[in-house]
Amino acid sequence: MAQTSIILRVELDHEKVTFGDVAAAISKSGGDITSIDVIRPGKDSSIRDITVDVAESAESQVVEALKQHEGIKLINVSDRTFLVHLGGKVSVQPNLPIKNRDDLSRVYTPGVARVCTAIHENPRKAYSLTIKRNTVAVITDGTAVLGLGDIGPHAAAPVMEGKAMLFKQLAGVDAFPICLDTKDTEEIIRTIKTISPIFGGINLEDISSPRCFEIERRLNEELDIPVFHDDQHGTAVVVIAGLLNALKVVGKRIENVRVVVNGIGAAGVSICKMLLAAGVTKLVPVDREGAIVRGGTYEHAMWQWLADQPQVEAEPGTLKDVIRGADVFIGVSRGGLLNGQDVQAMAPDSIVFAMANPTPEIAPEEALPHVRVFATGRSDYPNQINNVLVFPGIFRGALDCRARSINEPMKLATARAIASVVTDAELNEQYIIPSIFNEQVVKKVRHAIIEAAILTGTARRIPPDFR
Amino acid sequence: MAQTSIILRVELDHEKVTFGDVAAAISKSGGDITSIDVIRPGKDSSIRDITVDVAESAESQVVEALKQHEGIKLINVSDRTFLVHLGGKVSVQPNLPIKNRDDLSRVYTPGVARVCTAIHENPRKAYSLTIKRNTVAVITDGTAVLGLGDIGPHAAAPVMEGKAMLFKQLAGVDAFPICLDTKDTEEIIRTIKTISPIFGGINLEDISSPRCFEIERRLNEELDIPVFHDDQHGTAVVVIAGLLNALKVVGKRIENVRVVVNGIGAAGVSICKMLLAAGVTKLVPVDREGAIVRGGTYEHAMWQWLADQPQVEAEPGTLKDVIRGADVFIGVSRGGLLNGQDVQAMAPDSIVFAMANPTPEIAPEEALPHVRVFATGRSDYPNQINNVLVFPGIFRGALDCRARSINEPMKLATARAIASVVTDAELNEQYIIPSIFNEQVVKKVRHAIIEAAILTGTARRIPPDFR
Repeated sequence: MAQTSIILRVELDHEKVTFGDVAAAISKSGGDITSIDVIRPGKDSSIRDITVDVAESAESQVVEALKQHEGIKLINVSDRTFLVHLGGKVSVQPNLPIKNRDDLSRVYTPGVARVCTAIHENPRKAYSLTIKRNTVAVITDGTAVLGLGDIGPHAAAPVMEGKAMLFKQLAGVDAFPICLDTKDTEEIIRTIKTISPIFGGINLEDISSPRCFEIERRLNEELDIPVFHDDQHGTAVVVIAGLLNALKVVGKRIENVRVVVNGIGAAGVSICKMLLAAGVTKLVPVDREGAIVRGGTYEHAMWQWLADQPQVEAEPGTLKDVIRGADVFIGVSRGGLLNGQDVQAMAPDSIVFAMANPTPEIAPEEALPHVRVFATGRSDYPNQINNVLVFPGIFRGALDCRARSINEPMKLATARAIASVVTDAELNEQYIIPSIFNEQVVKKVRHAIIEAAILTGTARRIPPDFR
Repeated sequence: MAQTSIILRVELDHEKVTFGDVAAAISKSGGDITSIDVIRPGKDSSIRDITVDVAESAESQVVEALKQHEGIKLINVSDRTFLVHLGGKVSVQPNLPIKNRDDLSRVYTPGVARVCTAIHENPRKAYSLTIKRNTVAVITDGTAVLGLGDIGPHAAAPVMEGKAMLFKQLAGVDAFPICLDTKDTEEIIRTIKTISPIFGGINLEDISSPRCFEIERRLNEELDIPVFHDDQHGTAVVVIAGLLNALKVVGKRIENVRVVVNGIGAAGVSICKMLLAAGVTKLVPVDREGAIVRGGTYEHAMWQWLADQPQVEAEPGTLKDVIRGADVFIGVSRGGLLNGQDVQAMAPDSIVFAMANPTPEIAPEEALPHVRVFATGRSDYPNQINNVLVFPGIFRGALDCRARSINEPMKLATARAIASVVTDAELNEQYIIPSIFNEQVVKKVRHAIIEAAILTGTARRIPPDFR
């Protein structure tokens, strides 16, 4: 039963009610008081914030009990999730104080003019003398936010801010949220190019398919800083990381397994590409109309690309047809598409990643009796496939070596680095992927990214620890 | 004599030199060692950072002395101005830590989805639940940076970062620098509109004239958040503030004085407009071709606007002609345009604001014998007309009342508020304008902005202290 924490702001009429009455009303209706703050004391009345732990299902009972109690005026109810969002989740801080005119003349006019001139004469100095060195834009157009869809740029902001927090806390990267008030592909590309000078990298986020492919491809071609669409590649990288370890658990080799990928949108396309890069020889991409087959003709450019790959199977069929005998199922589609019989029909020692959110393609309870390794995108089951494992370390590494781009070898190196955090001794069916709080993750990903960037010639700087 | 502080990184060959030799060489050439940091100790050689205070004129002597000393290898010389810029001057910080999965589920998925939905249902909630409430973009295209001109978006970044620092330190406003890689008016307007959703205000900076007028006008019309071009209005507001106090000192009334404004670019136009709003009845705008006269025909739209104003004088003439008999001269043009005779020919008790940077229109030494109140843009003379007095408080107030725009009454209110910080008892020829470090400034400007915004109907929220 999910617990939540709410804060009740109440005004008490001291003639009619004591705090003891309030406490009794709360606990009788199922709440547990954890703290009390007096906001405005007073003789006749007082205002207090009462923090209450309560089962989500009982929240309304507590609220009603106070509303109906004589002498208690319920001013406001806030739950913790909303409270942590008040005023936004990130702020911009000076790196040093301006204590006097001497400081001011260094960080601002007239001293700053010499710094500007130095960058004007040698633009590469922007990397040492401005925030470009450590700053990433987290950019969305608000069209594909979480499971909520096209909610627009304002409503998308809390996700971008949350991401900016994670960038800083996990990898020390300064990330700033940018929410675009346009859905036009060309305008998005143009805007991002125009604002790019201050940034050392661009993290695209929650931009709907298929526009996201063109936007990312063009920006990668036209900008000299790394551009990474997290919904595509973040998910793909962590799926490959999990799969590499899952294959170890079941004792199969990647070149031998038959893999069904269901849901060929932003993430699905990138997963298929990475599976091929990682060595998969038998791939079955599936979308709503069934399997995308080798030799087929498709309007969607990415589907056509898949249909042209020799490793893609030529046999048509529905999801329920093609899953028969598959070694691996990777779902980035919708909840409840599969049942126990479907996964039972897979090859022995099957691997199922059911990552639809919030409801997986098949419920864990239904899948587990028939499947050897099972993973979801959820935190309340083992093996959470979470792209928070990916983006902080990728950008930490890309910024540190001033990578021009994040290419396929760098992504594959990231997947292998994440997989390597789980040691052979630790590895088992319930533990194929590390926790996002595991400090080894960013460290190893950074190392892998820099190494691969140097090897593929996209690094413009060799960090001291790689010399 | 201007002192500076430099940091010398040296490698010492211990067979040939001791640290005593280094210290002697530095002090003999005019430097004063203030600290020493051993960067890499060693038996045969060591690397140290030596911080040295030195007169700017003697800096090269110190450097040469070390270069020519046997056994000392000079690795690098950094002065403090460059050092404070290393890695940039602002960073993005989470407002609370993500300590565990519980925190994560509130600031990021899945909890954040409820916050996104709340904003989607009521877009005004963006002001309480995202950083929009307190965040301003400091935006430039790098075309008119300080006195350096068109140095491009990368080289402009240190100024924007410095401004962001001042916003936070002086007024608690989160400001993020955005440098645009375009000079096209329409593209600048489109880009700023597109990235506007996350911001509560737009501070335009260092955009060259005349494009700046159109850009600001259009953004003000097309966006519902305040847009403020600091080079125009920041300067104008602080000029008016200084002028109001200077007129008090000399005992003249604004409706009676004849005012010459020289340099009708971004700042000059805004100064003229504000002078008219403040009640000036005899105005002489002057540019390179001489006085802009009432009834004249001009290509430049803003000049034509001036020529259409009844308070603008009809008499043509050069600067040296029209300054005769003027009560007030305001220069935002070039250094050394005037001499002692020119200001001597002004009316008695004249007021001269010579704000060309870094060389004023007339040197203080030359002007002061003939002028009653003299001000410049420089910090090394009394009466510094500095727009750092303006923008922090303006945006503090505009954000706090969610102003839709910053209109003329709000600007005039700001000028009066800044002037009011200097009390009648303190006011004199040498002290017409407060220091930027005076804590009353932001407080009074904020109050004036909010009051004026409420009165002119552009405030969307009444802050608690105004209820």
